[in-house]
Amino acid sequence: MYRPQNLRIPGPTFVPQAVLAASARPLINHRGPEFAALLAALTRALQDFLRTEHDVLLLTASGSGGMEAAIANTLSSGDKVLAFSCGAFGERFAAICKAYGVDARRVDVPYGRAIEPDLVRDELAKEKGKDSAKAVLVTHNETSTGVLNPLKDIAAVVRDSGKLLIVDSVSGAGCAELEIDAWGIDVAITASQKAWGAPPGVAMVTMSPRAWKAYEKSNLPKAYFDLAAYKASLEKAQTPATPAVTIFIALQESLRLLAEEGLDAIIRRHQGLARATRRGLQAVNLQLFADERYASPAVTAFRPPARVDARNLIRILRDDHDTIVAGGQGKMEGQLVRVAHLGFVTLQDIVAFFSALELTLRDLNQPVEPGVAMTAALRAYAETAQQPTRPAARAAAARPATDAVASRR
Amino acid sequence: MYRPQNLRIPGPTFVPQAVLAASARPLINHRGPEFAALLAALTRALQDFLRTEHDVLLLTASGSGGMEAAIANTLSSGDKVLAFSCGAFGERFAAICKAYGVDARRVDVPYGRAIEPDLVRDELAKEKGKDSAKAVLVTHNETSTGVLNPLKDIAAVVRDSGKLLIVDSVSGAGCAELEIDAWGIDVAITASQKAWGAPPGVAMVTMSPRAWKAYEKSNLPKAYFDLAAYKASLEKAQTPATPAVTIFIALQESLRLLAEEGLDAIIRRHQGLARATRRGLQAVNLQLFADERYASPAVTAFRPPARVDARNLIRILRDDHDTIVAGGQGKMEGQLVRVAHLGFVTLQDIVAFFSALELTLRDLNQPVEPGVAMTAALRAYAETAQQPTRPAARAAAARPATDAVASRR
Repeated sequence: MYRPQNLRIPGPTFVPQAVLAASARPLINHRGPEFAALLAALTRALQDFLRTEHDVLLLTASGSGGMEAAIANTLSSGDKVLAFSCGAFGERFAAICKAYGVDARRVDVPYGRAIEPDLVRDELAKEKGKDSAKAVLVTHNETSTGVLNPLKDIAAVVRDSGKLLIVDSVSGAGCAELEIDAWGIDVAITASQKAWGAPPGVAMVTMSPRAWKAYEKSNLPKAYFDLAAYKASLEKAQTPATPAVTIFIALQESLRLLAEEGLDAIIRRHQGLARATRRGLQAVNLQLFADERYASPAVTAFRPPARVDARNLIRILRDDHDTIVAGGQGKMEGQLVRVAHLGFVTLQDIVAFFSALELTLRDLNQPVEPGVAMTAALRAYAETAQQPTRPAARAAAARPATDAVASRR
Repeated sequence: MYRPQNLRIPGPTFVPQAVLAASARPLINHRGPEFAALLAALTRALQDFLRTEHDVLLLTASGSGGMEAAIANTLSSGDKVLAFSCGAFGERFAAICKAYGVDARRVDVPYGRAIEPDLVRDELAKEKGKDSAKAVLVTHNETSTGVLNPLKDIAAVVRDSGKLLIVDSVSGAGCAELEIDAWGIDVAITASQKAWGAPPGVAMVTMSPRAWKAYEKSNLPKAYFDLAAYKASLEKAQTPATPAVTIFIALQESLRLLAEEGLDAIIRRHQGLARATRRGLQAVNLQLFADERYASPAVTAFRPPARVDARNLIRILRDDHDTIVAGGQGKMEGQLVRVAHLGFVTLQDIVAFFSALELTLRDLNQPVEPGVAMTAALRAYAETAQQPTRPAARAAAARPATDAVASRR
């Protein structure tokens, strides 16, 4: 029986057929001219999306491999860093430091809350003198809780301190505003299977000139993740070791589709989908987990109904309604449901999710008026479409047509 | 214009359409039941092919990442190891050690020659006492020169010494005889894009109980490549970080095709194709680079005709005849041509290669009698097909049919 899945986990995200088909093209020589052209085009496209003229290096690894590369290439054993954490991925960043003998002072914000610029400022004030932290680690979008940290403002505070700023934007880049150069981010990491809508297997790491200066002093061991080797190979449009060629090809196709939409529109779409998701959940009395002022455009976490184990709700969604969502990670296991809306996601996907959720709630003896979540989502999306992020840009694009219609009336 | 390529490089190798199509299936949840079943089946299939009951761990990385995992998980800073090298990949193994502060004593064999068991015995005799090497590193198939080292005999010598045996079999496993358990290999590495005929992006690492004991003492930093985390996740049929799901699916399909053929037949086919390649090259007076007693079943390196730059020959093969071969690596650049015959390769692919090579030699004013290389290859393959590697096994399988035919006559 044909039972397509509605894949609503925060990565791997849904990959369009055109991108899957691209990934199934015959293999090519990774030392030949076709791959050279591919890698050059990919690098340029990623620089555009990440708003950077810095190096963007593509590793055959998952996002966690990219995070490790960020640490291993800029720090030394015994170095101190200030690691802000608001969830499982903030903790992972600090754990990587620990594995490398980097002394991470972790500043934890309760799950569901954001890292606020004032907290960063206060903690940085404690980091003065010779023995202070060399770098600040921040998660951009915390996938485990559905929180988007106010990175622009955090970055401004860190810039004032002169410390290196290393950002896990694995699930933030490509769906949330991110200005690598303008905000002064030294190292950022993202990965193919998140907002980029390609299969997993490729991590991308940006390196600023300041980060390369830090590289010169870094004594941590690195071979496969040695970013200088990637930079040297990139000058020949190659990678140091055999790259995941088919994923690179897929990524080029997904970036082509995303470029057609345009980054501003992509960011607006994600805000609209996230808002639609939150309103739909609230319409059936489900409690949002994250502070809504910092709600993630990528993933929304919610509590199951009272006396319902999240794992049970997730299982029914999957087994009976072909809808795949994620649960809580680490200490939140069984307590959270996470529904993702990053990548190639449309309002129809969110409506489909709510149709499945409504049926699941009925199965759990939590009946709701049919259509109430779907309708709330649709209404919220329609409202958001009227509220563009960048009114000026949108108005400029929209005005001619609007004016033309107006003058004809 | 439709110009399919004859991809004759030693990885990425040709990937059959069925495998590419598998890699283009819709994405699945890497924490769900489908992926759990996939990973369990893949692990079991790889254990069968690698003749091991030890752990086989699948990393999202290229083979070089697997080599790094082998070092980082079994050794400590300052440890001494004995690193035998007969080419660029032997050198890479030693370079990874150096990056991690492991003291590798490199024993170099001239390019084109094999690492002989007597050499290993002599060098191990120098490694006595408390401060001696903890491990021996050996390349199984040296891709840069086309040499298959006599691993079975080397392993026997290393076993006698009690030292840990770590084998780079990235391009050997799946096309050359390899008995992980029977030969006592502690750690072996291979990768999806070599003999396994899947796209690049997945490295496989085997770990013996002795290797896990070494893990306990290892102090080298590891996070993404921490094999204990892979082992712990595997118990839940998961991976620690997001795996290259589509490559895992492809690998399952390619292993299914390979299992239909059977490992003994695969090894015989590779021997036949390698011999056909050597005879075809010799038929047009091209000089084989490797000691033929240790000729690789995966790749054959040859010298270009006198006064011809290998890069020029490779360029004509590619641009005019759509045949993609590799050149010399490192210090052999411009001096070697390498034609691969590992993975899903048939005699037709080798004949097609020779048709392109014959035309290329004509273009280089090195005319040959048309068909001479192709014919020599065909003849050599037909002869090899009469000489199975494992006569007993083949005879046992073949006898009933043969006897039946015989008795009917």
